[in-house]
Amino acid sequence: MSLRHVKPAGEAIFKDRYTTKAKELLTPWQKGLNYDFSVAGVPLSKPSISHSGASQAPGAIRSALQSYTTYSAESGVELTDPIIDFGDIYMDPTDIKGNQHRIYEGLSDVYATNAANHWMILGGDHSISYSSIKAHAKNRTVGVIQFDAHHDLRNTKDGGPTNGTPFRRLLDDSIINGENLVQIGIRDFTNAKAYQEYADANGVTVYTMNDVHQNGIKAILEEELERLAGKVDEIYMSVDIDVLDQAFAPGCPAIGPGGMDSKTLLEGVLFASENKKVNTMDIVEIDPTIDFRNMTSRVAAYVMLSFMKGKQI
Amino acid sequence: MSLRHVKPAGEAIFKDRYTTKAKELLTPWQKGLNYDFSVAGVPLSKPSISHSGASQAPGAIRSALQSYTTYSAESGVELTDPIIDFGDIYMDPTDIKGNQHRIYEGLSDVYATNAANHWMILGGDHSISYSSIKAHAKNRTVGVIQFDAHHDLRNTKDGGPTNGTPFRRLLDDSIINGENLVQIGIRDFTNAKAYQEYADANGVTVYTMNDVHQNGIKAILEEELERLAGKVDEIYMSVDIDVLDQAFAPGCPAIGPGGMDSKTLLEGVLFASENKKVNTMDIVEIDPTIDFRNMTSRVAAYVMLSFMKGKQI
Amino acid sequence: MSLRHVKPAGEAIFKDRYTTKAKELLTPWQKGLNYDFSVAGVPLSKPSISHSGASQAPGAIRSALQSYTTYSAESGVELTDPIIDFGDIYMDPTDIKGNQHRIYEGLSDVYATNAANHWMILGGDHSISYSSIKAHAKNRTVGVIQFDAHHDLRNTKDGGPTNGTPFRRLLDDSIINGENLVQIGIRDFTNAKAYQEYADANGVTVYTMNDVHQNGIKAILEEELERLAGKVDEIYMSVDIDVLDQAFAPGCPAIGPGGMDSKTLLEGVLFASENKKVNTMDIVEIDPTIDFRNMTSRVAAYVMLSFMKGKQI
Amino acid sequence: MSLRHVKPAGEAIFKDRYTTKAKELLTPWQKGLNYDFSVAGVPLSKPSISHSGASQAPGAIRSALQSYTTYSAESGVELTDPIIDFGDIYMDPTDIKGNQHRIYEGLSDVYATNAANHWMILGGDHSISYSSIKAHAKNRTVGVIQFDAHHDLRNTKDGGPTNGTPFRRLLDDSIINGENLVQIGIRDFTNAKAYQEYADANGVTVYTMNDVHQNGIKAILEEELERLAGKVDEIYMSVDIDVLDQAFAPGCPAIGPGGMDSKTLLEGVLFASENKKVNTMDIVEIDPTIDFRNMTSRVAAYVMLSFMKGKQI
Amino acid sequence: MSLRHVKPAGEAIFKDRYTTKAKELLTPWQKGLNYDFSVAGVPLSKPSISHSGASQAPGAIRSALQSYTTYSAESGVELTDPIIDFGDIYMDPTDIKGNQHRIYEGLSDVYATNAANHWMILGGDHSISYSSIKAHAKNRTVGVIQFDAHHDLRNTKDGGPTNGTPFRRLLDDSIINGENLVQIGIRDFTNAKAYQEYADANGVTVYTMNDVHQNGIKAILEEELERLAGKVDEIYMSVDIDVLDQAFAPGCPAIGPGGMDSKTLLEGVLFASENKKVNTMDIVEIDPTIDFRNMTSRVAAYVMLSFMKGKQI
Amino acid sequence: MSLRHVKPAGEAIFKDRYTTKAKELLTPWQKGLNYDFSVAGVPLSKPSISHSGASQAPGAIRSALQSYTTYSAESGVELTDPIIDFGDIYMDPTDIKGNQHRIYEGLSDVYATNAANHWMILGGDHSISYSSIKAHAKNRTVGVIQFDAHHDLRNTKDGGPTNGTPFRRLLDDSIINGENLVQIGIRDFTNAKAYQEYADANGVTVYTMNDVHQNGIKAILEEELERLAGKVDEIYMSVDIDVLDQAFAPGCPAIGPGGMDSKTLLEGVLFASENKKVNTMDIVEIDPTIDFRNMTSRVAAYVMLSFMKGKQI
Ligand SMILES: [Ca+2]
Ligand SMILES: [Ca+2]
Ligand SMILES: [Ca+2]
Ligand SMILES: [Ca+2]
Ligand SMILES: [Ca+2]
Ligand SMILES: [Ca+2]
Ligand SMILES: [Ca+2]
Ligand SMILES: [Ca+2]
Ligand SMILES: [Ca+2]
Ligand SMILES: [Ca+2]
Ligand SMILES: [Ca+2]
Ligand SMILES: [Ca+2]
Repeated sequence: MSLRHVKPAGEAIFKDRYTTKAKELLTPWQKGLNYDFSVAGVPLSKPSISHSGASQAPGAIRSALQSYTTYSAESGVELTDPIIDFGDIYMDPTDIKGNQHRIYEGLSDVYATNAANHWMILGGDHSISYSSIKAHAKNRTVGVIQFDAHHDLRNTKDGGPTNGTPFRRLLDDSIINGENLVQIGIRDFTNAKAYQEYADANGVTVYTMNDVHQNGIKAILEEELERLAGKVDEIYMSVDIDVLDQAFAPGCPAIGPGGMDSKTLLEGVLFASENKKVNTMDIVEIDPTIDFRNMTSRVAAYVMLSFMKGKQI
Repeated sequence: MSLRHVKPAGEAIFKDRYTTKAKELLTPWQKGLNYDFSVAGVPLSKPSISHSGASQAPGAIRSALQSYTTYSAESGVELTDPIIDFGDIYMDPTDIKGNQHRIYEGLSDVYATNAANHWMILGGDHSISYSSIKAHAKNRTVGVIQFDAHHDLRNTKDGGPTNGTPFRRLLDDSIINGENLVQIGIRDFTNAKAYQEYADANGVTVYTMNDVHQNGIKAILEEELERLAGKVDEIYMSVDIDVLDQAFAPGCPAIGPGGMDSKTLLEGVLFASENKKVNTMDIVEIDPTIDFRNMTSRVAAYVMLSFMKGKQI
Repeated sequence: MSLRHVKPAGEAIFKDRYTTKAKELLTPWQKGLNYDFSVAGVPLSKPSISHSGASQAPGAIRSALQSYTTYSAESGVELTDPIIDFGDIYMDPTDIKGNQHRIYEGLSDVYATNAANHWMILGGDHSISYSSIKAHAKNRTVGVIQFDAHHDLRNTKDGGPTNGTPFRRLLDDSIINGENLVQIGIRDFTNAKAYQEYADANGVTVYTMNDVHQNGIKAILEEELERLAGKVDEIYMSVDIDVLDQAFAPGCPAIGPGGMDSKTLLEGVLFASENKKVNTMDIVEIDPTIDFRNMTSRVAAYVMLSFMKGKQI
Repeated sequence: MSLRHVKPAGEAIFKDRYTTKAKELLTPWQKGLNYDFSVAGVPLSKPSISHSGASQAPGAIRSALQSYTTYSAESGVELTDPIIDFGDIYMDPTDIKGNQHRIYEGLSDVYATNAANHWMILGGDHSISYSSIKAHAKNRTVGVIQFDAHHDLRNTKDGGPTNGTPFRRLLDDSIINGENLVQIGIRDFTNAKAYQEYADANGVTVYTMNDVHQNGIKAILEEELERLAGKVDEIYMSVDIDVLDQAFAPGCPAIGPGGMDSKTLLEGVLFASENKKVNTMDIVEIDPTIDFRNMTSRVAAYVMLSFMKGKQI
Repeated sequence: MSLRHVKPAGEAIFKDRYTTKAKELLTPWQKGLNYDFSVAGVPLSKPSISHSGASQAPGAIRSALQSYTTYSAESGVELTDPIIDFGDIYMDPTDIKGNQHRIYEGLSDVYATNAANHWMILGGDHSISYSSIKAHAKNRTVGVIQFDAHHDLRNTKDGGPTNGTPFRRLLDDSIINGENLVQIGIRDFTNAKAYQEYADANGVTVYTMNDVHQNGIKAILEEELERLAGKVDEIYMSVDIDVLDQAFAPGCPAIGPGGMDSKTLLEGVLFASENKKVNTMDIVEIDPTIDFRNMTSRVAAYVMLSFMKGKQI
Repeated sequence: MSLRHVKPAGEAIFKDRYTTKAKELLTPWQKGLNYDFSVAGVPLSKPSISHSGASQAPGAIRSALQSYTTYSAESGVELTDPIIDFGDIYMDPTDIKGNQHRIYEGLSDVYATNAANHWMILGGDHSISYSSIKAHAKNRTVGVIQFDAHHDLRNTKDGGPTNGTPFRRLLDDSIINGENLVQIGIRDFTNAKAYQEYADANGVTVYTMNDVHQNGIKAILEEELERLAGKVDEIYMSVDIDVLDQAFAPGCPAIGPGGMDSKTLLEGVLFASENKKVNTMDIVEIDPTIDFRNMTSRVAAYVMLSFMKGKQI
């Protein structure tokens, strides 16, 4: 028995028979599935120093995939495989550090499925990268390309494991080596001198926005990816969307002028993705509750698509 | 194999083991299901005279059910049965009159399932009530209680079957009888004299806001429900949320002062629901794209709950 | 030669042949016109103590008349006569006191046309009432019914002729007599004790919100209108929309809880309008730039319609 | 040396010499100060089940006091004494339970100063009431009048000490006795049956919104205050602003229709304040980041003023 | 008789005697007028696939002309001639396809007046370009320069003549020839592969955003305008504002990153306008109801001015 | 006696021991203080031609300094000295021209303190620059670098000393010499031809946006700073933020496309600041009441930091 014109709730939307929306590729994980790409959400932003609704980004970014098709006009690439969607890590309302440990455990299990070749982790605030990279680095050496206006190398005595500390903690806990950390997009008057000094002392490679303007994002990445590739098993790409100028990413908790434009970020992600050791990426610091028309989640979805495109060129 | 802390996308939200959210009662329709209540969405608002995003209300109202529990503290009633969710009627982007016919066909099939005893139809703009009532009145005489600031008795030469015409068309097409139409909440300087005259000429019963203030909503309904119950097989309740004052329903296309407060509307719906011949209700004219914090969809969800509560007292 | 389907800009909107919108009654003033009602705009809000865009209210209120019809369902009154629209008084950007004098001169000329029997003045902030009442009181004694949360009896040494001073200046300049000033809706913790004392010392009659709740708006007005009617030639009604609770008038510069609901204000205006000596009304303190969906201008338009209805019952 | 026209930053605002703004009464605490009233802020909302910026309410409410004067037109009361402002309790970004303990310690010290006779605590979410009442109940038996749409009696296994649990924890930890807890404003479809049963089993007194409509807020309070006064040393009044209807308090995390209007709440607070055992009040669940024009913080400021007025009548 | 300081409603605004606002050039059409430029509005957006208020753009763009003067500082060009304003095409609320036919008839009549040398058509959504170009191509061969993120070559079986189909319909109906259609600004992951293939199969020339970045907008236009000029009588320029990046045009229904900046679009329009065969332009897909501060309508007004400037250099 | 965890109101925010926020450098002026930098606010925007809340910018910009640190990653410069904060000039609500004179007197006194070497004046609308430059030019010849989309050379007969006239008045009053005025960023269709002609006739140097694009901001400034440095004692830099494109400065009263990006402005300010004769800067035309997330005040704060950095490189 079928009812005329009746569609399940949420599906009675317009459908063009020749168009596939990127969101349609999302397929809930189940045991045995094995595809090229996967996604997992980490809806945690209570560790943030300032008020943040980044916990709502995993849902917002998935929704934004509905605004995109699966076809890259620039490259001719058509994304056809399902994307495994592991869903989101459960968060306890009052146990922040427990949540951070659960992210570690949950993503450890996610990565251990080997269900995908490439992993896209959707934050949440930047504190989640500590847990994600720790899980990722279990049985291998990991290098990190971090797009960010900030070092995120703050001391943890003041405020604990906030979104200002993930890379400090990764270095202090010897999960990654300072020489294998590359920070791109560091901005003027946005970080303390002490943390620049900490970066220097630990061998972290830092590119400011001026460096990006003068050298170009591709030249920077070419050099650093080659260098890292010779030293680590995997290169994890951590994309803090606040690396963008406020005109291009109005929905980050920490917005300001003087940042990257979205074209540059997208080029960088695409270029990095073409490297065989870049197989895991997180996208963090998007707060949909303060965004304008989900612009910032739309950028994040475009970042995901650029990452997938890079793997198929 | 289970992954620690990992939940399907959209389900990793806080869950109190003793609390059931009203939205959890929604159960997709399938053949053979039979419960007390059902819901169907009609996402059509292109017939509206003014710009309207009421097509997005069925989704917004369902979401608003997530803000409510299943327990009525006032009455002790606990809603426990699933609510059958038929989903939404499919809408063609450019064929408005075809859509109106498809609503008629789709809801005809929905009502014909006999899957539920009580039906809640979520618009959309008020034009959808023509199709819904026409479907509902197929094999029976139907009376209508219409909560509305407007008569909706406009001529159809000017603009066709808009949201200003559903009750005119129902009368002109002899689907309902003017004597079986009761309009409650008609507001000053909000309707043309010609349509007041049309209402009078056709035996429509009209209660203005002053009537509501002076007589009370229950007294009006008591009288009219009793009168209608003696004449018709079923009483269809059509709730145009713009019957409310703009302070209580800021998200209707046609807002203004001088309307009903939400307490009065909720009392009215509850009282009417206790009548055995009131088994179908639509809720229309909510535009979530212009609302403040989904306040108006929240009212609609409360109207649904009051309707269901009335059936179980 | 006529072009198919082409309408002048701004007029290609839906038109129901049986419906007249209240805005359609507006007719630009020209010499020789003579009708029952007239309107004039006074777009001045730079005298306001706090940042105010009330200068944009005359346009917003006229636009809001487009949301109303000419027919009062409650009374059967149909407004059919044109409303003479004198337009707006020109404002110099940097000469505030000059503007206040020009309002006096302009409205003096407007009133002197005798083109209408009843006058509706659209502010602007409340400072404009000084000039308007001064012009109105040229050749007659004038009493004032002021709906307001505030006394507006501030000293003028601090800040000059602001929107906090119009009634102080009218009393100090002997344009009106304190015994002929009635203030309704004065709110707790919203005025200084010194100005309550000034009101008392000058024989001003003050009704607080508690008085309104306890006595009812009609009883208050009945008593005061009768009293004033025995003493003055004309009763000027000054409606500061911030007399309303913030839930009902979110677009006033000075919002707060504990105010009047719109039903009460509309009842009061209607009742007062039925008095033969109440022929001039101003509506002030609406800032469309901070309103939600022009709710507050919609109230103002409803106030105008209630005023006109009262004259025709 | 003085510079012409130059005022300290933030103080170059208009000043009427006869008007004192309520905010001007705030005086930073220092040892030895002793006045009738005091205020302390508790900027914690990370325990909230849903995303909440209530941590920003202490600042927003203090700012809202700038919109009020010190004079009650209704009663003739003039507030003249300074209000001691203890400032805010420091919050660690990642240690929620530690913060809750620090609130207990900090408010214990605040109360122990005996610097004031009456205490106003500004949340924050409702979880802070546990700590505040625990501190308040150190050396005395405390009864509680809770204005709230919710019981806040959730189990703590699911989510820990969230904003849904403060009164459960107070009962479970025997800090207050169920018979000394009075909940007013409980709303339909807003609580789980299990927690109604828990309330009943523990002797908690519950008044729903229907009870408020039928009995009146004063009658309810009169009965309960008298009852409690006979049993406890102090009556703590906890005002969850979401007891209000969404039309009157649009800036609460949990909004909905069917709630109290602000007039009723203000009357209730005033009435309760006149009781000698009601000397401490908290105001919680205001999220300024989602409010409209700080309406909800303005209500909170009015609640504070009503509380102080009640003590001086 | 003249009233001091009184100006017609809407005209009491500040006027600098040496400054002419671009909006002042608009002159309602009447028979016999003949000037260089004309404008006509087409307020239709109900054919849109997603919710769109682009029907309100003709009014918003005209209003935005008030923000501009008539003088080009870059070129020394002063616009002095009136712009004939034909007004808007009337739209029936419920007859979408009838509206599209009426646009064809109305613009046929508009173009047939020969009142202007250059025509600016203000949508509405992109579906209006079908009707406009069909009217324009009545007695001549027309080539099209389309600025757009999308091909708009969708099949019409799914959804009929939506805003995704105008150029498909023009090709299928042989109104324009695929070889005479140039699409500029096509974006990654924004179109289906099938439509890229349709474009290729029909000889449509497609420039992606990468092409624009690499070749420059002028080089592309120079080549294509020269090519088209040799083949067609007239070149119609269709400007879908969503060709812009969301940072520069936040008020389009379909926004996203990776688009053109406004400087590039303005340069392109100016350059194209200098070509003698480019005499008609439409501007579409601006939804003022979701814009920020009418930014996107301001861009559209600037596009109009650039078009007029190009004709006068 | 100290209370555990209790901090003064507004200070209980997170503090990283190694990070200094730029706002922490602000130190209220008192006699005898002497540091490199100072700031003064001029909260006047009532002279603006269009509705403006720029009076609220001094507070908003100071708050925005809280989003920045004191460390320039690009240059290694660490700002360590206090910034003297003179506070704001007091404004009378109804005496605009008096306020302009008071700004002159107040800033005369401020500059005469010689408390700082470099001065940052925060408007307010652009009318304040007349008073500020007049005060600055008391005992010396002053040249001006003006970043602006507009000439601000309007006649003063129409509207008096508005925000469209400061440089006209400075020239007419011979406070500065036309040859010493350099305007950068003048935009198409944003100024009247008459004022371009006035600029030319008075020897003002004008660079349009095209000039900026073609020559580069540094080349322009290099040439003009050198030229001016040879002719004047001091070069005053006046930064009207509306020189920026609306994408980068959405909170200016006069927004539009075709403007500068923020990177270029920041580069320009930095470069100019390195010149020894550039010691005073104002920043004007930011209206926080219409901004998005204080983006435009954030730009202003960054401009301040760039100015200070330039002095320390
Ligand atoms: Ca980061
Ligand atoms: Ca960051
Ligand atoms: Ca209706
Ligand atoms: Ca209606
Ligand atoms: Ca007033
Ligand atoms: Ca007032
Ligand atoms: Ca609570
Ligand atoms: Ca609550
Ligand atoms: Ca298009
Ligand atoms: Ca497009
Ligand atoms: Ca300027
Ligand atoms: Ca400017």
